[in-house]
Amino acid sequence: MKKVKVFIPATVSNVACGFDILGFPIMSFGDEMVVRKTDKKGLKITKVKGYDVPLDITKNVATVSAMKLLDDIKTDYGFEFEITKNIIPGSGIGSSGASAAGSVYAINKLLGDPFSNKELIKYAMGGEVISSVSEHADNVAPALLGGLVMVKSINPQQIINLPLLPDLFCFIINPKIQVKTSYSREILPAKIDMNLVTSQVSNFGGLIHSLHTKDYDLLKSSLKDSIVEQHRKKLIPKFDEVKEKCIELGALGCSISGSGPSIFAITKGEDLAKKIEEEVTKIYQETNIEFSTYISKISSEGVSVIDSE
Amino acid sequence: MKKVKVFIPATVSNVACGFDILGFPIMSFGDEMVVRKTDKKGLKITKVKGYDVPLDITKNVATVSAMKLLDDIKTDYGFEFEITKNIIPGSGIGSSGASAAGSVYAINKLLGDPFSNKELIKYAMGGEVISSVSEHADNVAPALLGGLVMVKSINPQQIINLPLLPDLFCFIINPKIQVKTSYSREILPAKIDMNLVTSQVSNFGGLIHSLHTKDYDLLKSSLKDSIVEQHRKKLIPKFDEVKEKCIELGALGCSISGSGPSIFAITKGEDLAKKIEEEVTKIYQETNIEFSTYISKISSEGVSVIDSE
Repeated sequence: MKKVKVFIPATVSNVACGFDILGFPIMSFGDEMVVRKTDKKGLKITKVKGYDVPLDITKNVATVSAMKLLDDIKTDYGFEFEITKNIIPGSGIGSSGASAAGSVYAINKLLGDPFSNKELIKYAMGGEVISSVSEHADNVAPALLGGLVMVKSINPQQIINLPLLPDLFCFIINPKIQVKTSYSREILPAKIDMNLVTSQVSNFGGLIHSLHTKDYDLLKSSLKDSIVEQHRKKLIPKFDEVKEKCIELGALGCSISGSGPSIFAITKGEDLAKKIEEEVTKIYQETNIEFSTYISKISSEGVSVIDSE
Repeated sequence: MKKVKVFIPATVSNVACGFDILGFPIMSFGDEMVVRKTDKKGLKITKVKGYDVPLDITKNVATVSAMKLLDDIKTDYGFEFEITKNIIPGSGIGSSGASAAGSVYAINKLLGDPFSNKELIKYAMGGEVISSVSEHADNVAPALLGGLVMVKSINPQQIINLPLLPDLFCFIINPKIQVKTSYSREILPAKIDMNLVTSQVSNFGGLIHSLHTKDYDLLKSSLKDSIVEQHRKKLIPKFDEVKEKCIELGALGCSISGSGPSIFAITKGEDLAKKIEEEVTKIYQETNIEFSTYISKISSEGVSVIDSE
């Protein structure tokens, strides 16, 4: 294989009570990346389509991740990258995570799969860190592994694929406003009230139990964020109205994806996700903010090869 | 049935990352209670053996719990209580919880079982509150239901029996020193660092997942308390030494039971629990503190009838 084209899904992270821990891919939307072997050693970004990201290989998450991987496997050839960036940086649905996951996945394919997707996580994390305040895996892990992924610990790495309930769908709205990750970190309190901690812990435990026991009611009562949402929602226009509508229509939960401004709702069934899309679109049409919406099954798929030579 | 004698197990609560949420019974140790129907209406405590608890029915957790139940079911007869209090009040292994659970369980038997054990929890909680700062169910629920019990929420009541791994045992040491629950609440900070919160949430999620997937390694890496233990351990002599020894010998986890001073360790297999008992006994024999130790299988048993007429 000399050339590979991959699709890398956007990802919802900070899933309600799973702040910093839980994420899943949006299979209907993401970036594409073409990676080619070149005779000349070293990395080069030949083209960036869509949203603007650096061409400088020391500043682009994709190439920095690739370098981390190539520190461990030496090659006597190089790689060229062509990146189609559909996910807006700073949208809260894993834009840099997609670049990081896509490049290590593509290079691994071109090398003949020396690593498992789980092993690729550390390289992707090592690259993504240049766009984040701290190292985290809750976008790259679900992008690489697919499904509902729990990052129990990054050091040592304990990444868990959780069981999926049948018929789980997700609606996402991405308002096209800029929320800097660093600012949405700053807005969080450094310390949390004990009673909120207990509620977050028990909700997360309830969520994990609900997935194993296929208990949609318990899932619904657990998909809540006691800690982060109340602070970050101030940065997102119409958040309360959108959430209220989602819950009123029957969503299992609704909260902020990543550090915002994207909002997600989880539903049982695709019809409800579509109904929610319709109603939330009406709410956002009242603003003068541009936005995109997506609907995706929560499935076990992640990053994939769409073409190769 | 005119008279019933019940055994009510002591309970370990605040199980590591499950602070305020998770508990289980110590089946090898507990209180006994004899409850008799009397012609005269009303309640009476005729005898208290063992550790001292109030004879005044408005101050004894057992009778206050019974009154809560009898508010909902009127009888034209009364009840007499004889309580054998083996569990020291303030020991951290559910002394008041045992009184509360035992009395409602016994009365329910004498009434012909109008309530399920799950329904009895609210009455037991309603009585136990007189001995605690706040209403909680993490002693009465495991005493009444048996097994590893998660109190997801008390209002509305969501109490979950978690799956048990085979061969789970528990070692407990109860140093006979007094730690007031109110003081061990006071010693806790009102607010918790965000990074500790994330670690507690992910450990609790890991613990729940490990029970469903029978993963002892994950259980071991999850049975940790990032929040409470570091503060309360100062009240317990030799805590660090005991914990270090338990972990060194291979315990899956070790932490403080309830609000202390009892310490528990969870093991795979009874032999390890016995070995731990032997070694921890040596550590405590170096002090001039009296203590008791217990070993118990973590099983699905809870409160039970041992005799009836």
